[in-house]
Amino acid sequence: MQVQGFTAAATAAGIRYANRLDLGLIYSEVPAIAAGVFTTNRVKAAPVQLSMERLRSGKAQAILVNSGNANACTGIPGMEATLATSAMAAQALGIDEALVQVASTGVIGQILPISPFSNAISALAGNLSGSQLNDVARAIMTTDLVEKTVTTTVDIMGTPVTLYGMAKGSGMIRPDMATMLCFILTDAQIVFPVLDRLLRAAVDESFNAITVDGDTSTNDMALILANGLANNPWIDEDNPEGMRAFGDALRAVCQELALKIVADGEGATKLVHIQVNGARTKAEAINAAQTIANSALVKTAFFGEDANWGRIIAALGRSDCHFKEERVDISFDTVLLVERGLCLGAEAEAKATAVLKQKEFTVTVSIHEGSAHALVHTCDFSIDYVKINASYRS
Amino acid sequence: MQVQGFTAAATAAGIRYANRLDLGLIYSEVPAIAAGVFTTNRVKAAPVQLSMERLRSGKAQAILVNSGNANACTGIPGMEATLATSAMAAQALGIDEALVQVASTGVIGQILPISPFSNAISALAGNLSGSQLNDVARAIMTTDLVEKTVTTTVDIMGTPVTLYGMAKGSGMIRPDMATMLCFILTDAQIVFPVLDRLLRAAVDESFNAITVDGDTSTNDMALILANGLANNPWIDEDNPEGMRAFGDALRAVCQELALKIVADGEGATKLVHIQVNGARTKAEAINAAQTIANSALVKTAFFGEDANWGRIIAALGRSDCHFKEERVDISFDTVLLVERGLCLGAEAEAKATAVLKQKEFTVTVSIHEGSAHALVHTCDFSIDYVKINASYRS
Repeated sequence: MQVQGFTAAATAAGIRYANRLDLGLIYSEVPAIAAGVFTTNRVKAAPVQLSMERLRSGKAQAILVNSGNANACTGIPGMEATLATSAMAAQALGIDEALVQVASTGVIGQILPISPFSNAISALAGNLSGSQLNDVARAIMTTDLVEKTVTTTVDIMGTPVTLYGMAKGSGMIRPDMATMLCFILTDAQIVFPVLDRLLRAAVDESFNAITVDGDTSTNDMALILANGLANNPWIDEDNPEGMRAFGDALRAVCQELALKIVADGEGATKLVHIQVNGARTKAEAINAAQTIANSALVKTAFFGEDANWGRIIAALGRSDCHFKEERVDISFDTVLLVERGLCLGAEAEAKATAVLKQKEFTVTVSIHEGSAHALVHTCDFSIDYVKINASYRS
Repeated sequence: MQVQGFTAAATAAGIRYANRLDLGLIYSEVPAIAAGVFTTNRVKAAPVQLSMERLRSGKAQAILVNSGNANACTGIPGMEATLATSAMAAQALGIDEALVQVASTGVIGQILPISPFSNAISALAGNLSGSQLNDVARAIMTTDLVEKTVTTTVDIMGTPVTLYGMAKGSGMIRPDMATMLCFILTDAQIVFPVLDRLLRAAVDESFNAITVDGDTSTNDMALILANGLANNPWIDEDNPEGMRAFGDALRAVCQELALKIVADGEGATKLVHIQVNGARTKAEAINAAQTIANSALVKTAFFGEDANWGRIIAALGRSDCHFKEERVDISFDTVLLVERGLCLGAEAEAKATAVLKQKEFTVTVSIHEGSAHALVHTCDFSIDYVKINASYRS
């Protein structure tokens, strides 16, 4: 896939492992309007701190990204390393350093080594092409099993605009923009305040609605670069139709990437949608859905293909959501298993168990207290999750 | 072990499995002053609801407890079953029904079957003896691997007083009195308000400071029965020395039981103490310690014997605790691995890794913001945890 004016290249620079794509560069032939959402963790990796600071300008022209090393918890030497690599990229591209966004993912607590960058960066900049975006999507993978990209086009008053997104997971994922990278490139013409607002709204309904393990990361970021080359009528406050069309497309891209992240969650064998209906407030609905989606007992039951609704109602019971046990209904896809707090019996349980044997299903919890609802996406908690995370650094 | 005036019996009543101790009865020959702490989960099992209601009197004379079935989320039929079994016990013992405390643990969502109780309860009541308390401790085990009992004696102004405690875990454990049962029997003479207050204080520093999986249960309770037969000088507000001595003993009993629960956490291979020092407030210190202690990534790293301090600082970073990364020190037992936010290098890491190979160790996180501290006990997150919980109902 290509987006007008964007080129990219990726290489195996040997940052942590040999012969594995681990360094990517994305370049826009003109400076782009740029917005970003960054981790809410109090501990922010050096590249996050630098990219946040630079993005105050609302502009970026390149993204330098590596896997294999998060350059988090590395203090001043870590920041020096990030500054040095970004300077190399700026020099190789002949652009202002302030227009380089930097992102890192991988192990925490080790200073980013410089030499893999100095060895590779000229060749990388010299090798940029429109067809290598997916190589960058591969280069940012850590425990991800599959690369995650999405492309869509949207019509802005007669002018087609393209959005291309890439993301990586796949552990340390949970609401609040945790442990993931997402880069979205578009040729749309759009003003910064609108781009920024639409990105935040899209992230809320996508990356902030997924969870793999309840942990959050020091390195998360979602960036969007809009280079304007589609030459569409400007998307701004005076163009509500354009805002809506672009916003819908952006949300769809983010949601599709978010689901890909959960489906590829560490050790995940199932993608599960948790829908909570009838809460008093949106905040209570979200809290209830997230508490269920993060429960280790619920998630291991999913892995065991066990319609263990008792664990679901127990998780609901420790959430901040007000409800009465005797008003709770729970369905697995279309199978109603719990009605007014009571199990409907062996036949319903057998049908629900059949639903759990699927690769993907929805658990709907209706509490009949109000009209607020929330949808959170999670995965099961498997033996492989433990294996992956017990040996991640070895 | 025996406590004056307390007798007990246990049997394999076939509540869920055949030939497994699953029903216990504890009896005090005189009505005892009694206090309890119950689950904070909004969903409370029938026996919890009934026992809470009855304990308003501050008195109890018997505890009827079963494993194999939690009788939670079972509505009115569940409450009827609990009432029926408690009536049977009262009749067999010849005491007022209101003096029977009831407790259940096991699978959620199935109505407690009555017939195992009606078949067993006369023999149980007829078979009471002072030497069978440990049999009850075995009868309340579910996924527990070992029974958990503690005995201590304390001198109350020249009169020895005995405390005997039993508890069960071992999944669905986390702060706020989650998924555990604890019964403490004592021959102390003590007034209700003091007993109640000392129990709550002891629970806060023991059962509320442990976590296995971050889930909480519908059935937790900690009960204490004090039958007064030691004939010690009354422990009341006018006896501060007695209050202190008894309170210290009670806290020690609860703490020892709590550590036994964590050490026997589902799939646990390691007992880990998380000490957070130098927080601004006690609440922040507790939140920080609990967030670290509950992190799936931290716990899987413990299982992998990996001194992955990056995950610890990342968990700290998503807690509610204020801190500056560059002021954080992290030690594993006496090995300082992180100083002012930075790793001390390969040699320190090798020493820390050696600490993690132990069965028990302490992680100390010092943030140098204030003087508040907290200690939380956790275990590692193993492949067996997933295996146990993926197949629990099958």
